[in-house]
Amino acid sequence: MSKDTIGVGLIGSGFMGKAHALAWNSVGPVFGDAPRVRLLHLGDAGEELAARKAREFGFERASGDWRKVIADPEVDVVSITTPNKFHLEMANAALTAGKHVWCEKPMAPTLADAEMMLAAARASGKVAVLGYNYIQNPLIRHIRRLLDEGAIGPVNHVRIEMDEDFMADPEAPFQQRHEAANGWGAIDDFAVHPLSLIAILFGKVARVMCDMSKPYPTRKTADGDRDVEVYDIATILLRLENGASGYIAASRTAWGRKGRIAIQIFGAKGTIAFDQERMNEFQLYVTSDRPTEHGFRSIISAPHHPPYDRFCPAPGHSLGFNDLKTIECRQLIGRIVGEDSVGITFEDGIFIERTVAAAGRSFQEGRWMEVE
Amino acid sequence: MSKDTIGVGLIGSGFMGKAHALAWNSVGPVFGDAPRVRLLHLGDAGEELAARKAREFGFERASGDWRKVIADPEVDVVSITTPNKFHLEMANAALTAGKHVWCEKPMAPTLADAEMMLAAARASGKVAVLGYNYIQNPLIRHIRRLLDEGAIGPVNHVRIEMDEDFMADPEAPFQQRHEAANGWGAIDDFAVHPLSLIAILFGKVARVMCDMSKPYPTRKTADGDRDVEVYDIATILLRLENGASGYIAASRTAWGRKGRIAIQIFGAKGTIAFDQERMNEFQLYVTSDRPTEHGFRSIISAPHHPPYDRFCPAPGHSLGFNDLKTIECRQLIGRIVGEDSVGITFEDGIFIERTVAAAGRSFQEGRWMEVE
Amino acid sequence: MSKDTIGVGLIGSGFMGKAHALAWNSVGPVFGDAPRVRLLHLGDAGEELAARKAREFGFERASGDWRKVIADPEVDVVSITTPNKFHLEMANAALTAGKHVWCEKPMAPTLADAEMMLAAARASGKVAVLGYNYIQNPLIRHIRRLLDEGAIGPVNHVRIEMDEDFMADPEAPFQQRHEAANGWGAIDDFAVHPLSLIAILFGKVARVMCDMSKPYPTRKTADGDRDVEVYDIATILLRLENGASGYIAASRTAWGRKGRIAIQIFGAKGTIAFDQERMNEFQLYVTSDRPTEHGFRSIISAPHHPPYDRFCPAPGHSLGFNDLKTIECRQLIGRIVGEDSVGITFEDGIFIERTVAAAGRSFQEGRWMEVE
Amino acid sequence: MSKDTIGVGLIGSGFMGKAHALAWNSVGPVFGDAPRVRLLHLGDAGEELAARKAREFGFERASGDWRKVIADPEVDVVSITTPNKFHLEMANAALTAGKHVWCEKPMAPTLADAEMMLAAARASGKVAVLGYNYIQNPLIRHIRRLLDEGAIGPVNHVRIEMDEDFMADPEAPFQQRHEAANGWGAIDDFAVHPLSLIAILFGKVARVMCDMSKPYPTRKTADGDRDVEVYDIATILLRLENGASGYIAASRTAWGRKGRIAIQIFGAKGTIAFDQERMNEFQLYVTSDRPTEHGFRSIISAPHHPPYDRFCPAPGHSLGFNDLKTIECRQLIGRIVGEDSVGITFEDGIFIERTVAAAGRSFQEGRWMEVE
Repeated sequence: MSKDTIGVGLIGSGFMGKAHALAWNSVGPVFGDAPRVRLLHLGDAGEELAARKAREFGFERASGDWRKVIADPEVDVVSITTPNKFHLEMANAALTAGKHVWCEKPMAPTLADAEMMLAAARASGKVAVLGYNYIQNPLIRHIRRLLDEGAIGPVNHVRIEMDEDFMADPEAPFQQRHEAANGWGAIDDFAVHPLSLIAILFGKVARVMCDMSKPYPTRKTADGDRDVEVYDIATILLRLENGASGYIAASRTAWGRKGRIAIQIFGAKGTIAFDQERMNEFQLYVTSDRPTEHGFRSIISAPHHPPYDRFCPAPGHSLGFNDLKTIECRQLIGRIVGEDSVGITFEDGIFIERTVAAAGRSFQEGRWMEVE
Repeated sequence: MSKDTIGVGLIGSGFMGKAHALAWNSVGPVFGDAPRVRLLHLGDAGEELAARKAREFGFERASGDWRKVIADPEVDVVSITTPNKFHLEMANAALTAGKHVWCEKPMAPTLADAEMMLAAARASGKVAVLGYNYIQNPLIRHIRRLLDEGAIGPVNHVRIEMDEDFMADPEAPFQQRHEAANGWGAIDDFAVHPLSLIAILFGKVARVMCDMSKPYPTRKTADGDRDVEVYDIATILLRLENGASGYIAASRTAWGRKGRIAIQIFGAKGTIAFDQERMNEFQLYVTSDRPTEHGFRSIISAPHHPPYDRFCPAPGHSLGFNDLKTIECRQLIGRIVGEDSVGITFEDGIFIERTVAAAGRSFQEGRWMEVE
Repeated sequence: MSKDTIGVGLIGSGFMGKAHALAWNSVGPVFGDAPRVRLLHLGDAGEELAARKAREFGFERASGDWRKVIADPEVDVVSITTPNKFHLEMANAALTAGKHVWCEKPMAPTLADAEMMLAAARASGKVAVLGYNYIQNPLIRHIRRLLDEGAIGPVNHVRIEMDEDFMADPEAPFQQRHEAANGWGAIDDFAVHPLSLIAILFGKVARVMCDMSKPYPTRKTADGDRDVEVYDIATILLRLENGASGYIAASRTAWGRKGRIAIQIFGAKGTIAFDQERMNEFQLYVTSDRPTEHGFRSIISAPHHPPYDRFCPAPGHSLGFNDLKTIECRQLIGRIVGEDSVGITFEDGIFIERTVAAAGRSFQEGRWMEVE
Repeated sequence: MSKDTIGVGLIGSGFMGKAHALAWNSVGPVFGDAPRVRLLHLGDAGEELAARKAREFGFERASGDWRKVIADPEVDVVSITTPNKFHLEMANAALTAGKHVWCEKPMAPTLADAEMMLAAARASGKVAVLGYNYIQNPLIRHIRRLLDEGAIGPVNHVRIEMDEDFMADPEAPFQQRHEAANGWGAIDDFAVHPLSLIAILFGKVARVMCDMSKPYPTRKTADGDRDVEVYDIATILLRLENGASGYIAASRTAWGRKGRIAIQIFGAKGTIAFDQERMNEFQLYVTSDRPTEHGFRSIISAPHHPPYDRFCPAPGHSLGFNDLKTIECRQLIGRIVGEDSVGITFEDGIFIERTVAAAGRSFQEGRWMEVE
């Protein structure tokens, strides 16, 4: 790499803010080959909170006003980890100020806002990347390699399930996120992750047919029951541009599923399966040797699945969720200094948003919709 | 049981004919409490074949003409295991002759034929049951008990995948079953099994939205490539009469899947999962004890899941595919002698056929269809 | 096969008696190529019981005296399924009467008794086989083929665990089987199964070092606590004659294990693993292709693992416990009519008994013992 | 915590040196509640290497002489990650200089050296902890809590297997670690990890009976074959001080095992199982509810298994190997500032070394040995 030092600003210090902070702290020692990273400026709501989190996360300075982070002349790249209703304003301000942007997914509550973010990114010429981390798993990278090599032949069918259970308790009270202003529910909150994996592994979705449902149509409030306006369960039938059929099924009310992203990829010569809950292994079935020994093999992540090797020289020792974020960070840095990089840029992200929008319309109209 | 002896006729001696024969041979010694079964008359195409199979399967006499099996006055019940294009003629002849009928699934190539079979069954007053065997698994019976008890609360979402790979090789030549005369492909060949499970576990399907695809649009013949007219892959979005959403996904080209029927049932208080490839276990997640120990428990079939106990007094010793057929046979006998019985009668089967028909129309028209 | 008909006598109608009866009923229809089997004579304690069981199991006649079964001139082979303290007397009587013998495992409570059984078998010239069923699994046969082919190279280490939980409850009262007269406990009740698998897969055990323990040293009786005289848990370190090291671990008090026989076979070029609780699959790891895709493959039983094909022409449809007994029965018949057969004869069985005896002495003396 | 800043020195920058560096970088941002950590001084062989690694790992200064790290007055704690033949000299120097020590496992090539390290630690009054990381898994901590609560009743049997395959290739040439000077092989290289888990979960080992074997007695050198002097495979029968029986099985030549540490803990009321290869889940079988639903439940790591929550607020998102090291680092810091801490101190470590020594003697003498 060429550039000597990268100055980092971070807006937001919640779950994803901490994940970004951990990645920025680790990316240097893990990879060794990156420019020096300076954790410069952390912004969050309130000077006290910002100062405390800056101390915890190892940032040099803090502001209660996020605009100061962007205005900081030493900051080269801004991590935006606030709720997505703030993404448009912050990303556009950062890009306009000539900063690179690493913005958490999804882009924005509306497609129109997301299109404005893309326009700002294009106008700036800066790197603008979204925080889709599951695509950074060394095994996902290896699956892509296998697909490219034709290990399972042309792909004709893909199934992805994404399930968690944080909305599964019907006794949990009505929350702000049950309001329609937050979008559709499962498809924008959740299905964007499967869509990022489809983007990386297969390219574009051509058309969609979506069903959604509400397992619990009402939830409790202090003043009695209130109608839930979002859909916690959704299934999107789809066709990829390459002709393959498939679906994405997503649920936020799937008791027992904690971080499931179960992928099945069927080809003319074999099958690949993966589940994010066991993110350090994937299954491969190929038809190339003696049929009496055909079977799904469980392949465990290892140094020969780069960049696993940068975390550990021994196989089977497991990467974790935060390690994916560190890889994502390294890819972002690579993109800034001009390397080939894997990631979902604003250009790619807008396609995910359009697919979500098409799925929403499809559900409303009860028919297939093309993705523009 | 009251009746002393049941005289059995069997038409067809292929895969399913053998399965019926094994069931008729085993049902007495396994259960002990059934009337004595006499294996009387086996019919197949050709006297020599019929005679040889009668000897192998333990039948007393054989005919090259299936009508003689039905005409045999000592025969009380006729197993029909021929290709489904013969079901209408044989079932109706048997029912008209006053015989009980155990006919392999699915009912008939067309809904109209199936309706005629149902009419014959109604007119006869005889027992008329279809060979849906997966519903007879003691664990499926136990899952139904758990659902009835409310172990996972009201069910709001159901997913069933049914996958095999016997059509997965694109180099395999064109067969007669690739012709449109054989129906749709995956949905009638395959998805009827998930529909039988839905019927037993949840009741009726209210509406469907179906997608189908052809992984290999052409197949080789001696005279060059020929268009495949059926769909090896299908997904049916559905709504149950009880309001739950869900889908059935079916593929005959899923490399590596050998007998997969993977079921996921989501309720307000837990989740149940099952896979026919590991038919002696199922998974249960409940939310009733301390959260730090919540997890899917893998429950292994055991004598306290009747009628497992009739096969083996020790847990974890595994039943097999043919054992399910023996249970099915016992249920059939029970129905004949007037016991409460689990099974898919022609009354239930016609609903499965109608659901398949609605799925076909839904695919053609690209929209949701009500199941009549 | 040459012989036209085989007349079968069965002594005992409990768990294993029923298992033999099911096998004798099924072996004809399943295999088709065996001589006709006549279920002739069932003996158990008491005329009424014997008659009832004969009716259930399909035997033509019954006796309350087992000697009449052996004396029946039409009986060619006698299944002995009584408690093992009766094996010596019954087997010797049957062999002396010129009958073939299929006797449940283990041979007898003492090594001396077992040696007498072997002597009788040798003197008779008749087939004398023990009821070790797990070795008959088509996948075990396939594993032996893989070992013979060198698929995993020379084997250097073997581990077998055999665990159930029927003695796991400390509150369960003292039973007769807790008396020392019943043998050691886990090693003779249980570890004989792993030893039968070792015999089939690898040959002989050269020496052993055994540890045993009592999880519950006393159990309740009506008159207060009583000392348990047997050992429910045992581990046998061993060396095979081929030089490989390994162990057998056995427990009857392993909560949650229902029918576990977990085998791990390590070779210079790969590894094989199997667990009886999932008896329709095994795991194979080989090092012959690209390392980035190395992994344990889960191979599902299928028609190309004979004789699975005799039960079902489709892969992945699962055999069950009783099917293994049917295969065992077919192997016994094959041996009677002079075919190459897989099974544990009295010749092989005595070696298993000697290994158990050596393990017992090893435990008493706290040192390694050679197996004679 | 009280102390404001902890100055860190690191000796060695290989696999474990990097693991320590990553932990020291992450511990602040992950936990938030620790004193500020200053990465002060990295020592390795050669100024250039040390300087490069200091830059990569984020250390302020570097030395080609490890003694300078220890002499650095700002250094409070020294991470020692060099080969274990250097541990005695380095640890003693650091302790004598008044530094806390975090030394990688095992302690030293000989028990005598390890005893000298313990003496130095005692004399110094400083914190001296060994790098046993697997005990820091939040799920291991939770298993200990379950054991303490009596969730599975009194433990009567324990089995631990630890297997990898980095020595499995017989074609790999003779290495220096095949010389007897490196110790026994599997038991000191490997079995110390299971022993650390036993120490944390159950306390002390009372006596041992060990078998060892050489899968490949010779290995290639440039000058022909050479005898391998160590044992890649070992099994240690053991009795715990609490009376439970069990064993540790260890292999460095187990093809396909990458980081397996499979634990089975049997109690009077249930069973717990865990495998390090799937470090984010464990299995629990309890007997407290209705038997028809008994089964091993698979429990996934989640925020209610602290300190998982410090890494991620959502369940099922997976920790990785390096995260365990970060927890270990936090525990070390806690011990320095006077908190209750989990870890293997030199006091605990010497017991592990003594158990290894007893196992070695047991193997030589072919009999049980008490652990002193």
